[in-house]
Amino acid sequence: MAPLSQPSRPLPGDDLGLGTRPGPGRSVNKDGTFNVRRLGLPTFRGYELYHSLITMGGFRFLGLLFLGFLATNALFAAVYLSIGMDHFVRPGGEGRLDRMLDAFFFSAQTLTTVGYGHISPKSHLVSAVAALESLLGLLSFALATGLLYGRFSRPHAQIRFSAHGVVAPYRGITGFMFRFVNRRSNQLIEVEATVSLSYLDGESDTRRFVTLPLERSKINLFPTSWTVVHPIDEASPLAGMTDGNLRKAQAEFIVLIKAFDDTFSQSIYQRTSYTADEVLWNHRFKPMSAFGADGVTEMEVDQLDATEAADV
Amino acid sequence: MAPLSQPSRPLPGDDLGLGTRPGPGRSVNKDGTFNVRRLGLPTFRGYELYHSLITMGGFRFLGLLFLGFLATNALFAAVYLSIGMDHFVRPGGEGRLDRMLDAFFFSAQTLTTVGYGHISPKSHLVSAVAALESLLGLLSFALATGLLYGRFSRPHAQIRFSAHGVVAPYRGITGFMFRFVNRRSNQLIEVEATVSLSYLDGESDTRRFVTLPLERSKINLFPTSWTVVHPIDEASPLAGMTDGNLRKAQAEFIVLIKAFDDTFSQSIYQRTSYTADEVLWNHRFKPMSAFGADGVTEMEVDQLDATEAADV
Amino acid sequence: MAPLSQPSRPLPGDDLGLGTRPGPGRSVNKDGTFNVRRLGLPTFRGYELYHSLITMGGFRFLGLLFLGFLATNALFAAVYLSIGMDHFVRPGGEGRLDRMLDAFFFSAQTLTTVGYGHISPKSHLVSAVAALESLLGLLSFALATGLLYGRFSRPHAQIRFSAHGVVAPYRGITGFMFRFVNRRSNQLIEVEATVSLSYLDGESDTRRFVTLPLERSKINLFPTSWTVVHPIDEASPLAGMTDGNLRKAQAEFIVLIKAFDDTFSQSIYQRTSYTADEVLWNHRFKPMSAFGADGVTEMEVDQLDATEAADV
Amino acid sequence: MAPLSQPSRPLPGDDLGLGTRPGPGRSVNKDGTFNVRRLGLPTFRGYELYHSLITMGGFRFLGLLFLGFLATNALFAAVYLSIGMDHFVRPGGEGRLDRMLDAFFFSAQTLTTVGYGHISPKSHLVSAVAALESLLGLLSFALATGLLYGRFSRPHAQIRFSAHGVVAPYRGITGFMFRFVNRRSNQLIEVEATVSLSYLDGESDTRRFVTLPLERSKINLFPTSWTVVHPIDEASPLAGMTDGNLRKAQAEFIVLIKAFDDTFSQSIYQRTSYTADEVLWNHRFKPMSAFGADGVTEMEVDQLDATEAADV
Repeated sequence: MAPLSQPSRPLPGDDLGLGTRPGPGRSVNKDGTFNVRRLGLPTFRGYELYHSLITMGGFRFLGLLFLGFLATNALFAAVYLSIGMDHFVRPGGEGRLDRMLDAFFFSAQTLTTVGYGHISPKSHLVSAVAALESLLGLLSFALATGLLYGRFSRPHAQIRFSAHGVVAPYRGITGFMFRFVNRRSNQLIEVEATVSLSYLDGESDTRRFVTLPLERSKINLFPTSWTVVHPIDEASPLAGMTDGNLRKAQAEFIVLIKAFDDTFSQSIYQRTSYTADEVLWNHRFKPMSAFGADGVTEMEVDQLDATEAADV
Repeated sequence: MAPLSQPSRPLPGDDLGLGTRPGPGRSVNKDGTFNVRRLGLPTFRGYELYHSLITMGGFRFLGLLFLGFLATNALFAAVYLSIGMDHFVRPGGEGRLDRMLDAFFFSAQTLTTVGYGHISPKSHLVSAVAALESLLGLLSFALATGLLYGRFSRPHAQIRFSAHGVVAPYRGITGFMFRFVNRRSNQLIEVEATVSLSYLDGESDTRRFVTLPLERSKINLFPTSWTVVHPIDEASPLAGMTDGNLRKAQAEFIVLIKAFDDTFSQSIYQRTSYTADEVLWNHRFKPMSAFGADGVTEMEVDQLDATEAADV
Repeated sequence: MAPLSQPSRPLPGDDLGLGTRPGPGRSVNKDGTFNVRRLGLPTFRGYELYHSLITMGGFRFLGLLFLGFLATNALFAAVYLSIGMDHFVRPGGEGRLDRMLDAFFFSAQTLTTVGYGHISPKSHLVSAVAALESLLGLLSFALATGLLYGRFSRPHAQIRFSAHGVVAPYRGITGFMFRFVNRRSNQLIEVEATVSLSYLDGESDTRRFVTLPLERSKINLFPTSWTVVHPIDEASPLAGMTDGNLRKAQAEFIVLIKAFDDTFSQSIYQRTSYTADEVLWNHRFKPMSAFGADGVTEMEVDQLDATEAADV
Repeated sequence: MAPLSQPSRPLPGDDLGLGTRPGPGRSVNKDGTFNVRRLGLPTFRGYELYHSLITMGGFRFLGLLFLGFLATNALFAAVYLSIGMDHFVRPGGEGRLDRMLDAFFFSAQTLTTVGYGHISPKSHLVSAVAALESLLGLLSFALATGLLYGRFSRPHAQIRFSAHGVVAPYRGITGFMFRFVNRRSNQLIEVEATVSLSYLDGESDTRRFVTLPLERSKINLFPTSWTVVHPIDEASPLAGMTDGNLRKAQAEFIVLIKAFDDTFSQSIYQRTSYTADEVLWNHRFKPMSAFGADGVTEMEVDQLDATEAADV
């Protein structure tokens, strides 16, 4: 495993900001998040609120909105009830439930500014609370408008990586390869790839990082798929390595993709990693693209993970 | 056709991400989209929804909004009818159609929060459904607000390319040229052009890509028009080529323009291509700009495509 | 005027995209717009609408909104009148003006979704038109919301340039200088300056462009003011020039400033130009900054244009 | 203090735009703002309004909204009262206070478009004012929507710097170090650091700036913390310096961090500075990260400032 025996201090540019002593598991999860837990932060962090509301799942977000709507109406209904329902002009019954529900629905009609008017304030006190509630309603829905737009317009890369990396024949030698497609209809251009190898140095028991040279690290247009290739030549840290070596060294290929979204004029980053267990040796990717009868290139996106055995 | 006989593997940087085996037709359409079809994707793709709603035509978008409005009201009208119109205070008639339309318009008045009140809930059940509907209405219009803004504020480059490229005299030799203007009033600056030639190699029957050197590949300001020039000197892959050669090799000039929109602080990309059929040999562009009587430069945008014969 | 006699073809990078034959007046106006008029465009250009609505003056924008509100209400009032005011429940009088105004204000109450209900639809036809109008109202105000936000959040550089450039003593020789400040409270960083000299070549009667080397072309932070200096050394195209020479050659210094707005995370560009008439020879800028009693640097923004005579 | 005795004119690139004659205090405050006061600006500056409304504290912003709501209603109430409350259909009493409050609450119900209708216009004059008010209400809440979204979506870096810099042992020599963490859950990538030393030159009594070379000036990923190191080798301007020297020279380490926010696709800058008083000599940072039992890296954010004595 000589090629992996490099100086114990990473060279400038080779450090990924992951530190030199990560744990036994993977540093970067398949979805690109880091395998890091942050402790000692205050429980409530106001500056996380927007981030949470923007990134949480859609159903959870709508559920929160609905719960907030119910809670606000319940709160104002309690205020109206404590003032007394005789402060209202209303056609409804005088039972306890009738009064409670009338207060609740008057609140809802005020908060949403629908204001039918069949229940309406009779006293100035109720008018004042209702004015406050309608202001609160407008501001809340202003907030919801902003959040919904923020959720929608946030850059959503839909780059899908092949499930496995492969070590396959490449121009007389072999190469480490993976591929990815853009699942969205938006145009990605100026796509750049960076691949780093992280591995445990058996001698010093520390983790090391090497940036792997690529056959090509940038493409201008990205209409179909891109197979990123690290040629395993003599200078490669993978030269002479086997499947078993890589597993023993707890190797991890860390992938960073950068692109420009032409439709929304935004830079987009996506990360993933391949552990030694996720690399198929002596396999190659099957072609994904062919010509349709009408001369249009056809890309079969569901063939992204398709590989076949290849003798090296 | 010697200058086109290059090594069969594209050099790094020459690959446009279009793959080396595109079909017989053009790779890039005139409007800059790729001639690629993606298969194997699920029919419904949630992540495409925002993209579709933002990029579809304006009338289609408004039509969808209107249909959604009708459908939502029809749905809630059905709920109100199933509860029974005797749960409403309403001045209307008791015919079947009267009841249906009253339910529909009560729904519309609730969804839009206009809430006149001449039709109003009599029972708590109707009040509850109406509260839900007004909440839904506010959120829907919040969404519509975000979408309308997203549609409006999306970068819209209005670069218009000349219909044809030309091969015209240029400083004693000839050059391949095309030109373009910015049709919008916004200021584009730091405009960059990249031109690649894609052609079929007769010997190996594969497509090759060459980046063409330009007389100038970037201009700082872009007040009028820009004629991009690839000088056909001895080193040019077009040296010694004829109109017939180009057509036979199914040549395609792929153009990528990058600019910065000064008004909206956004990077803008636009693509197009010229096939061999779209290149006029021994023609040159007529001037588009002249001085007005008041010393102001006048650019005649509708002269963009104007060419005239030129002896080489 | 030897130093200005350069080869008649601008070097790559020296061309600003202004063409080599601008008219007698200035190429770039003081406010940074180009002195160019575009002809031959269609009268109505949909793609300019958003741009116009975002960049027009605030009062004009509000005026347009108000006129649109009046016109829409007038239109719907006409529809309601043609249906007949007997299709409404309303307390108002039966005079012609009463009916017209009731129709107008019912429209206004529907468009804004205020919906008091003292005027309300009696027939289904009016209900249908009113439902349409309230939908239109919501969408229109959604648009207005987006436009107001777009107007507000658009990058607004408030760089103010000194009214004059000066030719002042500089390290034993002289230099062409101008200065500018940021009038806003936002932080500009990574500020870059590019200065080009455009002049009429007396021999060939064409305009030429030279990029002027600067003492410093970028500063990282921009807390106060920046005096940009082109040292007039022997290599400078201004070496040996006089005020009269510059005027005769219709010289124009074209300035392009690029910066990053730290507060809103946007790149900002601003342009201006100094004609020969706007250059003061043998003047220098008075200092704008001094220390306050409390150790804080004090910048007197209104001293931006202050110069004083300086013997060269 | 020889290494600090550099030529009195800063080299290009070393100037931070702070000028060469700052006062006795610090140039950059701990929160990254500049220690500069701008005079001579007009009292009211429209172009600052958006900036102020976006950057002011949340409670102050909500307070302003509430005051604006009260003031607008008071204004319109005054208009309605001057027209006369007999122009309204209303159930309320005829006392002076009753009429005033009815006018106020009718205004509130119009401005928020809640429009119950129990108070409604009887005359056309009141209808006209109410139509104007509801238009104003919608536009105001459109503005509020935009402002709330602008406040939320503004890039908020939550980089927290260590309270002190340290001079600690580093690879056989010593180094000036500080560290920082990202307190937010968003991913920062391509993080760059620039550190400049500002100090008073005893001989010429002017302030000078030197950019300090760093062990590493950029990291690709930033999952935990980053300790920035300036090695104090022989070429360092700090070579041979002591705590006392630095204080006497009023030294200030000015730090500029640039990063890309992966979640919101925005460039983020943050600044801070360390004065000589804020540098601990012969101290080093305690580790912040360790492995959890489950192999996840655990970072203790509240240990950011923890240092311990270190013999050099």
